Amino acid sequence: MSFAEDLDYGLFNEYLNGFMVSKAMFTACELGVFDLLESEGFLTFNVIAERLGTNSHGMEQLLDICVTLKLLKVEMKKGKALYQNTELATLYLTKSGPKSQYNMLLYMSKTTYSCWNHLTEAIREGKNQYMRTFGIPSDDLFEAIYRSEEELVKFMHGLHEIWSINGRDVITAFDLSPFPLIYDLGGCSGALAKECITLYPECQVTIFEKQEVVQVARKHFPLLEEPRIGFHIGDFFRDAIPEADLYILARILHDWADKKCIQLLTNIHQACKPGCGVLVVETLLAEDKRGPLTSQLYSMNMLVQTEGKERTPTEYQELFTQAGFQDFQFKKTGKIYDAILARK
Amino acid sequence: MSFAEDLDYGLFNEYLNGFMVSKAMFTACELGVFDLLESEGFLTFNVIAERLGTNSHGMEQLLDICVTLKLLKVEMKKGKALYQNTELATLYLTKSGPKSQYNMLLYMSKTTYSCWNHLTEAIREGKNQYMRTFGIPSDDLFEAIYRSEEELVKFMHGLHEIWSINGRDVITAFDLSPFPLIYDLGGCSGALAKECITLYPECQVTIFEKQEVVQVARKHFPLLEEPRIGFHIGDFFRDAIPEADLYILARILHDWADKKCIQLLTNIHQACKPGCGVLVVETLLAEDKRGPLTSQLYSMNMLVQTEGKERTPTEYQELFTQAGFQDFQFKKTGKIYDAILARK
Repeated sequence: MSFAEDLDYGLFNEYLNGFMVSKAMFTACELGVFDLLESEGFLTFNVIAERLGTNSHGMEQLLDICVTLKLLKVEMKKGKALYQNTELATLYLTKSGPKSQYNMLLYMSKTTYSCWNHLTEAIREGKNQYMRTFGIPSDDLFEAIYRSEEELVKFMHGLHEIWSINGRDVITAFDLSPFPLIYDLGGCSGALAKECITLYPECQVTIFEKQEVVQVARKHFPLLEEPRIGFHIGDFFRDAIPEADLYILARILHDWADKKCIQLLTNIHQACKPGCGVLVVETLLAEDKRGPLTSQLYSMNMLVQTEGKERTPTEYQELFTQAGFQDFQFKKTGKIYDAILARK
Repeated sequence: MSFAEDLDYGLFNEYLNGFMVSKAMFTACELGVFDLLESEGFLTFNVIAERLGTNSHGMEQLLDICVTLKLLKVEMKKGKALYQNTELATLYLTKSGPKSQYNMLLYMSKTTYSCWNHLTEAIREGKNQYMRTFGIPSDDLFEAIYRSEEELVKFMHGLHEIWSINGRDVITAFDLSPFPLIYDLGGCSGALAKECITLYPECQVTIFEKQEVVQVARKHFPLLEEPRIGFHIGDFFRDAIPEADLYILARILHDWADKKCIQLLTNIHQACKPGCGVLVVETLLAEDKRGPLTSQLYSMNMLVQTEGKERTPTEYQELFTQAGFQDFQFKKTGKIYDAILARK
């Protein structure tokens, strides 16, 4: 092989192995490896396997893959390998880590990975794969996503965690202090609402959500009980949208085709006074749609799991223009999610 | 985020996206993107979607992901993006490419990806996941793997292709010219047999395989019809092993637990005259089992799909010693598969 061929082969092999790497990380989370090692470090594979109720050879293999992936460290003592978490694992992979992505990873492992097994059909048909994957119709998309309380709780925990990494960046991308009265449409468990009240001492945030989401939020996210955060129960596609200074739409428009996005933005435009705004939080595609890779993969995931896609800044501007908004700015945060501010 | 945290987040995100990257490559193969662009380059996404019978938005997304992954190139002409294969795609991803891995990728996409959805259970139970994945018992492992002629044909094509990348290296790792009479146990469709007769003008290779494999090999790999390659029908765990100068075991021992490997090597030792040898072709784990990553993932795959594992040179030496062999050498090829030569 020439040097160029070697490079190509390396890339090819990396892509080929990708799903095994993802699953190794997901499975180590699910089995509780990082949580056990966070509370008690320096354990042998035999002890870890026994404590987590797994086969010891399988556990040894998994741990050693995690070492190669820099999710675990190993120290040799008296000929025995003692495993402990790396900072990456402590931060993202333990349940209680400061930026834990534990539930999001489990959602990716159990739901997203399974749906992507039908990527070929998704591209042939141009539609999501709930029916093939789980035998669930998806005519009402969120009925499919929220198909049981258990699924809803997992989904909400997963979404909540994403904002522990990227929430502050998107809420500080623009100065929101001129907008004290905020409605967070589809604000879920209130992760961004909390960022808002922490960062802007004058603001009040109302989370506009469906009944079942509000119930789960109150039951499973009790830290939300805070006077400056409230709930408004409703369906923002069907019910009237109350007046506010700012409407947040975080990871909402990417679920829907252009027509529904324009319908929602038009309804907001009608409720909204001149000077008031909409903050859209989404991952932005490059104008030629050929990057960043994560945004492209998430856009494909919208095909596989929703009715939407990720968009370029120009595509969002077009949606806003059609809904009647005139002022449009966007900011790339340098992380996954970016921010767009449009004003009436 | 600090610089170290940024690096960690980058890694974490790469692992998280891994399964989507794998599936994008697999699906582009399965839909025939690379084959179409190999015969007719410079097509727009609309034409590609139409020719391959897919949704055009889904196809555009897939093509642009392939561009970012360097599997495709794009050229703008009169405002239209025209796609063509990169060298990587031509080499590995087209059906007729000189080192095509097309069938292997389809096998990974349809069988291996699905089995890995049960990695957690595989590690808990320490056993393969055919039952959970496909509802197939795996008490007889190869009955599960060869569960229909269609599956067997796919599996054999996939295996065959692997040796187009790495076959020459493993057959030239040692000078095999002192061994003119070769039995390739489990030699499948004869990819390594062909390397042998090409490289060693004096040798004759007999492929020792089960009836159904020989039938498929004769039907689907007609290029094998060559006087220096023959077949011997049998089960090398149950039937007598004929006398030969060299026995090849390529990707055989990794399917089985130590006990069965020792049983097979003992049978070979009995058939084998002093000075005669066994060439084992496998991916070798580092002595501490913490690398290379590909070998570790393949070893985990053996847990998920077989009764075996990948091994270190010392572990192979131990198997050979227990079977009575004394002389043991190994060579790392620098690619995925390595070679071990043991002599009686």
